[in-house]
Amino acid sequence: MTTAAETATAVTPLQLGVGARFSIHPHTDDFAGVILGALDDAERAGLTEGLVLDTDVVSTYVGATEAPGEERIVRYLAGVVAAASRRTGGGHVVAHVLLSRGCPGERTCDLSVTALPRPEPLDVAPTGVDAVAQWSLYPLLDGGDGDHMALIEAAIAGARRRGTAARAAHYATMLTGDVAEVLATAADAWAAVGAQVPHVTTHLTVSVGSPSVRDAR
Amino acid sequence: MTTAAETATAVTPLQLGVGARFSIHPHTDDFAGVILGALDDAERAGLTEGLVLDTDVVSTYVGATEAPGEERIVRYLAGVVAAASRRTGGGHVVAHVLLSRGCPGERTCDLSVTALPRPEPLDVAPTGVDAVAQWSLYPLLDGGDGDHMALIEAAIAGARRRGTAARAAHYATMLTGDVAEVLATAADAWAAVGAQVPHVTTHLTVSVGSPSVRDAR
Repeated sequence: MTTAAETATAVTPLQLGVGARFSIHPHTDDFAGVILGALDDAERAGLTEGLVLDTDVVSTYVGATEAPGEERIVRYLAGVVAAASRRTGGGHVVAHVLLSRGCPGERTCDLSVTALPRPEPLDVAPTGVDAVAQWSLYPLLDGGDGDHMALIEAAIAGARRRGTAARAAHYATMLTGDVAEVLATAADAWAAVGAQVPHVTTHLTVSVGSPSVRDAR
Repeated sequence: MTTAAETATAVTPLQLGVGARFSIHPHTDDFAGVILGALDDAERAGLTEGLVLDTDVVSTYVGATEAPGEERIVRYLAGVVAAASRRTGGGHVVAHVLLSRGCPGERTCDLSVTALPRPEPLDVAPTGVDAVAQWSLYPLLDGGDGDHMALIEAAIAGARRRGTAARAAHYATMLTGDVAEVLATAADAWAAVGAQVPHVTTHLTVSVGSPSVRDAR
């Protein structure tokens, strides 16, 4: 017989369904070259280690095969966005990111894992690329009391303490900072909710090099 | 004293928090001109009637002030995407769409409305622009049994019957068809879940004119 703590240790990121789906949108005529180049840059930098990738016509799936899954995913995503920004000379690039934990795809979830591991805060180096993002967090299996809003409000309070939460918007929280810190803010909150709720997703629209932001300065 | 049916009739889309947030990404050097032009085209076509719009540096909020809120929102979004496609001569344009119902922004939800109206299926004319999309649906306040997966599976089954659901992907369902029909598929499912669950969101990444799709043909 194993203890709850031992069970938690043994659970792999893939068993927990820890993964991401993202699309990246360079606003330039050479978008295909920028996307393929940025994906290549991230791979050459070693950022795909411990991950499985699958690109289709809309987006790329990123699954974590090795711990720390959340950190590997965020380092990879930050690396791809920063590389796309560099390849456009600081031009306008938007990424849409979905982080999911608990349900690998449409398959009926194995949500029987009750001893959920609580991951350490992510350690992701800054990229030097500033971002502004809109972020939404969805705790899906929130139990009998249905108090998913308390989990969301706690996550936003954490982002405020961290200094990335800029202001509230309808259906989302505006985050600002280095793209790595913005992504880590969302991923830390998502992983923290995942320690209490077996199925949780989060969405970010991450914008770098926006002329609207430059004009607003 | 009012009956449940009378209460349901009296609830406005804004009281239910029916709205959207979207960003649109023309993959061209002239992205700013295309975006502003497409928003203008949709307004000139009368598609903003009964809606409130608020554009910030990341995306545009669309709130429904008049019924049928879901239909007004989807007609507007389909119109903007189709206009952006036309303005790029059928080039590559991606929209990211979040539909939300039940929580206007970060404010604590007024989820006391228990007599939820069940909207009619949306009536949205085809745009002539083909899209491929990835779609995720999140019933957030699913009550004591926590069976949010049953609602999601019923929504996917509905999309299959409709002919827009192409295949499953990790964390999403692939939809194909006219951009209006793709958006209406997601919105009909979101509104149907909203008749049972007071807080529900759905996300779509909608792609038109993708060279990857052309290459795959």
